[in-house]
Amino acid sequence: MNLYLFRHGIAEEHQPGLKDEERQLTKEGRQKTKKVAQQLVKLDLHFDLILTSPLVRAHQTAEILIEAGLSSQLEISDHLTPEGNINNWLTDWLEPRNYDDKTQLLLVGHEPCLSNWAEILLWGEAKGSLVLKKAGMIGIKLPETGSLLGCSQMFWLTPPKYLP
Amino acid sequence: MNLYLFRHGIAEEHQPGLKDEERQLTKEGRQKTKKVAQQLVKLDLHFDLILTSPLVRAHQTAEILIEAGLSSQLEISDHLTPEGNINNWLTDWLEPRNYDDKTQLLLVGHEPCLSNWAEILLWGEAKGSLVLKKAGMIGIKLPETGSLLGCSQMFWLTPPKYLP
Repeated sequence: MNLYLFRHGIAEEHQPGLKDEERQLTKEGRQKTKKVAQQLVKLDLHFDLILTSPLVRAHQTAEILIEAGLSSQLEISDHLTPEGNINNWLTDWLEPRNYDDKTQLLLVGHEPCLSNWAEILLWGEAKGSLVLKKAGMIGIKLPETGSLLGCSQMFWLTPPKYLP
Repeated sequence: MNLYLFRHGIAEEHQPGLKDEERQLTKEGRQKTKKVAQQLVKLDLHFDLILTSPLVRAHQTAEILIEAGLSSQLEISDHLTPEGNINNWLTDWLEPRNYDDKTQLLLVGHEPCLSNWAEILLWGEAKGSLVLKKAGMIGIKLPETGSLLGCSQMFWLTPPKYLP
């Protein structure tokens, strides 16, 4: 199974009276995310399921990926908020291995959560060694058996500018 | 400084009477490597120096990158052979920091050396957690001061198929 981690696009700045969870993608953020989505389509990628953080900037990012045709399934998961915990998410989604070996799952979320999770899957701990830009993506191959933590492999890490 | 690790393209199979170091790129290997090189040019990448392993398949790969215009400087380094040692290479090249902060250095070499080196630069040890395909590339940002080992950051890891 391949797990893809996608960071939301460029969003509005923090401002008084605007809740963090309500911040929307900017016009530039939408455009760049659409461009990445179109490139992923050209690369023949398709996801069985897109799971997104409920925060508006992530949800809007996930909708752009859906509109581009990258998946027909979108679900919201509270585990993907900035306060989300990889253990809950692993317990719910990955550890029971209730999925086909060929499953392509994409998560839309936030930094530093996503790159930290990637590090934990690859090396068992997070050191801040991965740079995941907005609208950038990580691709991880999960092991078929045994522990996921510290036993997965990364095959892709790209900022949007290298998906022109 | 950014350090790029580039794995040689597809090469001839092992066969009796053919020394490993003499194995050449196949026709497919040349074509795929050229395609990647052209894509890197389109992405506006340019390297101050390309250092290559002396083995034929690596040297031929480096020449394709040079011919594409990705650098005007090519040097051969014995540290980049499959038996090469990151400590020697770091001592010679990186630790003295005899280079500009903006230096873009590309190394052409072999697996599992390259991905192991990347892991050592990022996490201090190698666990086989990175998948680097032939004609694939890793991009690493080195810290400006302090130790390089376990303190660098990866911003790019791509197989050739995602650089279409």
